[in-house]
This record gives sequence, C-alpha cells and structure tokens, in this order.
Amino acid sequence: MLQSIEARTGAAIGERWAESTGTEIDEAVRAAANAADDFASTAAARRGALLRALADALEADREALVALADRESGLGLPRLNGELDRTTFQLRGFADEVERGAAHALTDDAAVAGAPPAGRPRLTCVRVPIGPVAMFSASNFPFAFSVLGGDTASALAAGCPVVVKGHPAHPELSRRTAVLARKVVDAQGLPAGVFQFVQGASIEVGVRLVRAPAIAAVAFTGSYKGGIALAKVAAERPRPIPFYGELGSVNPLVVLPSALASDSAELAATLAGSICLGAGQFCTSPGVIVVPEGTAGDAFVSALATALRGMQPHAMLSAGIRATFERGVAQWRGTPQLAPLVDDDTGGELPRPFLGEVSGADFIANRALHEEVFGSAVLVVRVASTHEATQVLAAIGGSLTVTLWGAETQSEDTRRLVRAATQVAGRVLFSGVPTGVAVTAAQHHGGPYPASTQPFTTSVGYAAMDRFLRPVALQDPPQWMLDRKGVPV
Amino acid sequence: MLQSIEARTGAAIGERWAESTGTEIDEAVRAAANAADDFASTAAARRGALLRALADALEADREALVALADRESGLGLPRLNGELDRTTFQLRGFADEVERGAAHALTDDAAVAGAPPAGRPRLTCVRVPIGPVAMFSASNFPFAFSVLGGDTASALAAGCPVVVKGHPAHPELSRRTAVLARKVVDAQGLPAGVFQFVQGASIEVGVRLVRAPAIAAVAFTGSYKGGIALAKVAAERPRPIPFYGELGSVNPLVVLPSALASDSAELAATLAGSICLGAGQFCTSPGVIVVPEGTAGDAFVSALATALRGMQPHAMLSAGIRATFERGVAQWRGTPQLAPLVDDDTGGELPRPFLGEVSGADFIANRALHEEVFGSAVLVVRVASTHEATQVLAAIGGSLTVTLWGAETQSEDTRRLVRAATQVAGRVLFSGVPTGVAVTAAQHHGGPYPASTQPFTTSVGYAAMDRFLRPVALQDPPQWMLDRKGVPV
Repeated sequence: MLQSIEARTGAAIGERWAESTGTEIDEAVRAAANAADDFASTAAARRGALLRALADALEADREALVALADRESGLGLPRLNGELDRTTFQLRGFADEVERGAAHALTDDAAVAGAPPAGRPRLTCVRVPIGPVAMFSASNFPFAFSVLGGDTASALAAGCPVVVKGHPAHPELSRRTAVLARKVVDAQGLPAGVFQFVQGASIEVGVRLVRAPAIAAVAFTGSYKGGIALAKVAAERPRPIPFYGELGSVNPLVVLPSALASDSAELAATLAGSICLGAGQFCTSPGVIVVPEGTAGDAFVSALATALRGMQPHAMLSAGIRATFERGVAQWRGTPQLAPLVDDDTGGELPRPFLGEVSGADFIANRALHEEVFGSAVLVVRVASTHEATQVLAAIGGSLTVTLWGAETQSEDTRRLVRAATQVAGRVLFSGVPTGVAVTAAQHHGGPYPASTQPFTTSVGYAAMDRFLRPVALQDPPQWMLDRKGVPV
Repeated sequence: MLQSIEARTGAAIGERWAESTGTEIDEAVRAAANAADDFASTAAARRGALLRALADALEADREALVALADRESGLGLPRLNGELDRTTFQLRGFADEVERGAAHALTDDAAVAGAPPAGRPRLTCVRVPIGPVAMFSASNFPFAFSVLGGDTASALAAGCPVVVKGHPAHPELSRRTAVLARKVVDAQGLPAGVFQFVQGASIEVGVRLVRAPAIAAVAFTGSYKGGIALAKVAAERPRPIPFYGELGSVNPLVVLPSALASDSAELAATLAGSICLGAGQFCTSPGVIVVPEGTAGDAFVSALATALRGMQPHAMLSAGIRATFERGVAQWRGTPQLAPLVDDDTGGELPRPFLGEVSGADFIANRALHEEVFGSAVLVVRVASTHEATQVLAAIGGSLTVTLWGAETQSEDTRRLVRAATQVAGRVLFSGVPTGVAVTAAQHHGGPYPASTQPFTTSVGYAAMDRFLRPVALQDPPQWMLDRKGVPV
C-alpha cells in the first residue's frame, strides 16, 4: 500500500492507496511497447516540443508541486524550487540537444572502390532508440531524479517510451506529476504509451517491471542494495537488458598540503556546508576527507569540527533513511580505531552531523569503513603523504566523484594522485565541493563499480541520451532511408 | 597441453607444450598492471608508432606466418594473405585514428557565471584508458581476430596494455605472433607489460585471467557457450568488469519479392558463395534465408540448391568444430517440419553444405531452429508476406547482421521490416552478403543479445577503441593538466 507521509513529523496524510497490480504493470509496458515503433521515428521537433511542454507544465503547477514535495520530503522550499528549476532546465536542455540533431546524428563513410581491406561498401552508422525504458525514481531528488527527471528526459529525447516507477517516499507528488505528464503527452497528440506510470512500495512491483519482456533498458537511481538486486533481475532475463544503475558513493575529498596554506577555516566551512546540504542525502555528498598529518591538517580538522557543530541538518527523507543513518553512525562509533570528533547526538528529532577521525593505515585495513553512510556523517582520514592519499583512493575504489584540493602545481606525486582519482571516479573536481552536478555536455555522473553499474555512461548531462540509442550500421542504405534525415525508419 | 595440429589431416605436428601456469598468468597480469599507468599517459605519436611497427613486423614475417596459419587452420593461402592484409590495415587504421586525436578527444564546457542550473563550473570531459585488457583470440580468424587482431589493436590505441590468450586451435602461430609482438614492444622502448601473452586449452586458463584483480576489461570473440561462461566470471568478480563478448549469430537474410524480379540465379550463386566462404566459419555467415512463397521464390530456392550442390567447402578449423557442425545438421535432419533440399553428406573428409526448408509458422514455433549451426548449413524459411518476414526476424532476436534484399522502394511494410531489422541487428545490409566486415568508422559489429554481450559497442571498426576509454569529467582542471594536450595525467 502507498501512503503519503509528512517527512518532518512522520504523520500520515490522506488515504492509503493500492500499488500497481501485476496486470496494470503489464498493461503499462504493453502500451509503451505499442508506442515504441512510432515514437522511435518521430522527428527532432516533435520530441523537442514534448520536452518543452513537460517543462512548461511543471512550471505552471510549481506552487502545488513544490508544496507537496516539501511535505513529503522535508527538503524545504528554496531547495525544491531550485530543484524544479533544474528539472525544467534539464528538460529544455534535452530539447535543445535533440533539436540540434544529437539523437539523429550519423557517421557516414562513403564507399571506396577496390578490393578489401581498403575497398568497402557505403556504411552509414545511425543510432536507433532501444525501446521502452523502465525508470526507477530516486527518493532524494523528488523532481530532478524522479518522474520527470534526467532519466525520463534523456529517454524521451532518445525516442524511447518511458514506464516510470514512482518512488514510494513521495507517492502523492509522483502521482500528481504523472497526471500532469499524461496530459501533456495527450495534448501533444502522442500515444499514451509514450509515458506510463506505475507505483509500489514492495519489491515485487520493480521486479515485475524489469522482467517485462518488452522493457529494453532500465534506468535506476537509488541504493546499492536495491540497485544490485534489480541489476541481477535484468541480467537473468531470457533476454538480458542494460541496467543503468546510479548507486551512490563515498565521494572522497583529498586536501593536499598546499590547499592548507590559505585560509583553511573558510575551506572547512564550505565543506561542512556540503556535508550537511540536504541532510547529506546526496549521492555526491562527501563521506571521506583525506587530510595531511601535522599542525596545518590539525587546524583544518579542528575548523571542520567547529563548523559541523554549528550546522543543523533538516529532517531526513523518511524514518527508514534516518534509521539507516543512525545505524551507520553507531557502527563507526563502535570502531576502536576511529576517534569521534563531532558526536553530539542527543537522540533528538533531527539528525546531528557526525565526524570521526582515523589513520590512513587503519582506514585502508578496515573495509567496513569504505562503505557510504548516507547522511551528514563523514570520516577524516589522516595521511603522511600524497602517496598514502593515493592508496586511500585505491582502497575506496569506485566513486561518483573525487575532489582534490591543492593540485594546482604539477609534480610526479600529484600526477599519480590525479591519475588514481581518474581511475576510481567519474568526475574529478579540483575546486569546490562535489554536491551540485551541472547539466551540460561534458558532465559525467557515473563512476566505476560500485558507484554505478555502467561506468562508461552518465545519468546526468546530455550524454545520458546515449544510454538509449544503440548504434546500427546501415550498409548500402537505399535512398528513401537517407531522405528521412536521420530518422531512417 | 598445447599441440599444433594440421587442420586438413588432423595430424599432430611437433612436440606438445604446457599451458601457462596460474603463476605465469598472474605474472603476465602484474606486468601489464605495472605498465598501465605509464602507457595510459603516452602521447598519440607513441601509440601510433607502436601500431605501425606491429603491422610492419607482421608483413616482414608474412610468408612464415601465413604458411603456419594455413597448416593450423586449413583456410588456404589466398584467404590468409588477405586476412593478414586486413590485420595490418586495421593496425595502421587505428594508428591513423589515434594520431588524429581520437583517443585524446575531449569535450570542454566553459564555466558559466551565475547561479545553477544555468551557472556552472568549467567541465572538461576526457577519456581515460580503463587499464589492462584480457583479450581472447578467436579460432576462425588466425590473424584479424587473434593475437594482433582488432581487439588488441583497439586496446593498444586506447592506451591499455593487453594480455592476450592465444587460441589453442592455432597455438604455434599464436606463439610466433606473440614473440614478434614482444620484440616490437621492446624495440619501441615500451615496457614488456604493454603486451603479454598466455596460452591454454583448458577453461582454467581463461577463468584465471578474467578473475585477475588488475584486469579491467575483457574482449572475447568465440562461441556463445564459452563467452557466456566467461561473462559470468567477469560479472561475479568482487569488482565486476566489462565483458565485450562477440558470440556469433544466425545472420538472417530476407529476400523481398522485388529482389526476385531480376536475375535470381545470380543472387543465388552469390549467396551460396557467402554460405560456403571459409566453410561457413564466419560469425557473419548467413544461416537463415527468408524467401517469399510462390513461383519466383521457388525458382530462387531451386537456384540456391543447385549452386550449393556445386560448392565444396574446405576442411573445417578443427575436428571439434566439424563434429559440432555435423551434430547441428543431424538435429535439423531430425526435425519433421524441415524438408532437406541439399543433403548429400557422404561421410567424407570434407563437410558438405546443407540446405533445409521450413515454413514461417513452423520456424517461428520451433526455438531450436533459431540457433546458429556454425558451418555451411542454412535454413530457407518460406513466408507469405513481408509482415511474416518481420515476425521471423523478431523470433530470431539478436544477430550481428540482417540482410534485406529488395528494400529499395519505400512502403509501410518495408519500413516496418527495416525497423525490425534495426531492432535485432548491429548491421543491416541492403545489398551484398553479410560475410566481409569493413574496418571503418561507421562499422558496427555487435548485435543485441545473444549476438554480443555489449550491443552498444563494436568489435570491428574504429569505434572499437571506445570500449577501453572511460569518460571522466574534470571540474575546474588546473592549467598543467590542460597543457598536456589531451593526456591529462
């Protein structure tokens, strides 16, 4: 059963309602499959118009949507208004991309006379929409990674129908957004199958959707546990399909000695803000801070502790997420090698930030410490050298981001550290904090395992569309296909 | 144990020798891992020089290599000389690609002032070599898909060391090619870890290689059974890695009524040649021919039967492959719905072509008929309409290629058929035969499951390099990295 819950109080609002039944899920997939062929052959202008109309509809209903999102997520109006802006920016950005031909681009190699290997027929490589995409919304971004978020926008831009599974942590908002999307699809004269919506809090709903034979790919943003379980379902289908899972990560931030030459109190305050942003409920929230041993490092850690003590994260998304956070912190607290520096949990209604300190050697040796604690909890790892910092990164392994402060000057050690960072992360930052992921062509949001299940792909930015466009080489294509201007069939 | 066998006679040549031991495999991977960092940061010119030197070395040793390949594969000197040409063309083609900057291309988005979502930091997306690649050679192309074939060429172009597992069906040739490659790597002043070589006929060798923690990706060309087994090993590692498996396919060819208006005897002769080319031991060998019912179709099938009876495929690659072929044909022979049209097996030394006929409905209903019989064996499927041909394609599912003869004129039926072809294949041909895969930028050799395990990627053509280059977004990269011109670290 689904139930809208007020995040700040835990109070149930309104009636409960039933999850989508198996039959309803199958019907949603069937509608998407029936629409796939025609939607795949739509021209750029039509897809662009759909994406823009979805953005307009979100904005037209902004007040009600943001209020609902705030009630169900507790994320606050400023953040949620900003997130809605990001979501419409993203929808329009994909409209721009598809209108300028990105989904319909082709590589055309003219025929070359003569014998192979130099001689060849004409080959025209196009990209074909993969088919209906199952899209699993995330809890922590009720707009930008939910019903009309980046996954939906990129799949529609690519010409794929979408079957969205709404997240049960904001069920009422999801339902309202879906109603709005359906109206837009209808007003655009597109078949209803282009956008389908199912809901459920039980694992069966997701499994049924991923197993539906006509589903051609899955886009998922969420927990490691849920993502890996569904990835397995996708891989074990009679016809395995791509599973694009963005599963969150530890996001180490390395402070190099040269970064501490300037005002470390300001850096510490910036970092504390990033750690507590959205109560730490970001997949890019920093979880491990690597700091050099010595007095400059001590001062930075002390400033970070002070800054964190002064922060008050807001209520978490749900009681379940809060409980998981507290369990993670308790496990850290019970680790003998770990010294708690900020640990003023008073058992209150709101979560408190936690900061622990551990040596590089102890951190590297203890695999349990490499796991993400989702929320405003962070480990400081003290290292003797840039080389040890490199080893810490290698121990953590796959992450969405690595941030390196103080890498402005080239040295062999720095180069090795940067190289290690590129080996484990999908995005490497050289200033600022990892929270905040710009929507642009050069963005890459997806790191090596376990940060994401397909680290060559991104779930944010315009390259997200590539996940749903499979290359097909046309050999000696007839003229009528080429006359269709990038929409060969 | 490894043993060089004369393909035409089955006679053992020379001494047997031992497979690579577990320790040797681990050492090969360690050497590759130690070389990975420095090789990843090589400039284009250095990689280009390596690839060209490998091509030159193959040509310098052509006579001995081709003779050895002929002895171990039975594929004949003309074909093997042509294949060596293709292999050197491919190595030099990747050199051209990498020299013109393909491996080092970046997407640079300038910073935009102001608040997000429009405001953003500078983001520069580069691609980093993924690390040591385990490369499994195929049996059926002793040059082009073996030790220095497309997988090795594309991995080296991408800046990844390669650990090649030679195919046991041409062990002496593999060994000789590896010695040659090692000399080139040494002469180029590169560490030996850039090219490593292991050998084995047992499954343990491959499993050990795929499980080696430092291996970052696997490239495999071979059987469905072997590929799926190794893909599972790759997925079940503590750190799963991409498995690029090209597993062969049925390659349906659809003859539309309009294609039969012209000289169908000539078409039939061309097709018979493709079916028997290399004794049908191509992953793109046509296995299912869809032909319209009626007199024109009857005439074509009759011409095809006549042409096939006149062909004599050469000896197959090994006794094992021959036995599998005969088992496949025997299974077809035992299928009541299937009428044998060419079946003149006399139990002789050389394989004979097999042609069977079955109705569209019987074919669609019988899943066993959708499986590839590797060799010169082909099914004619008779259909009542273009719509039924479309259903036959859907029933077959993933394939490397689909060929459509007679799609020159646009109609709704033809459009649906072409669309179905793009849904199941990585390459769709509108003339000619699927055997022969041009090495070019627009090539796509990799179809949906089960034709390949990563259908968004290609194992032939210059995009094959993309399999080994993972995108990483650099946020506010320092100037020294940008000064390195596309080799950031």
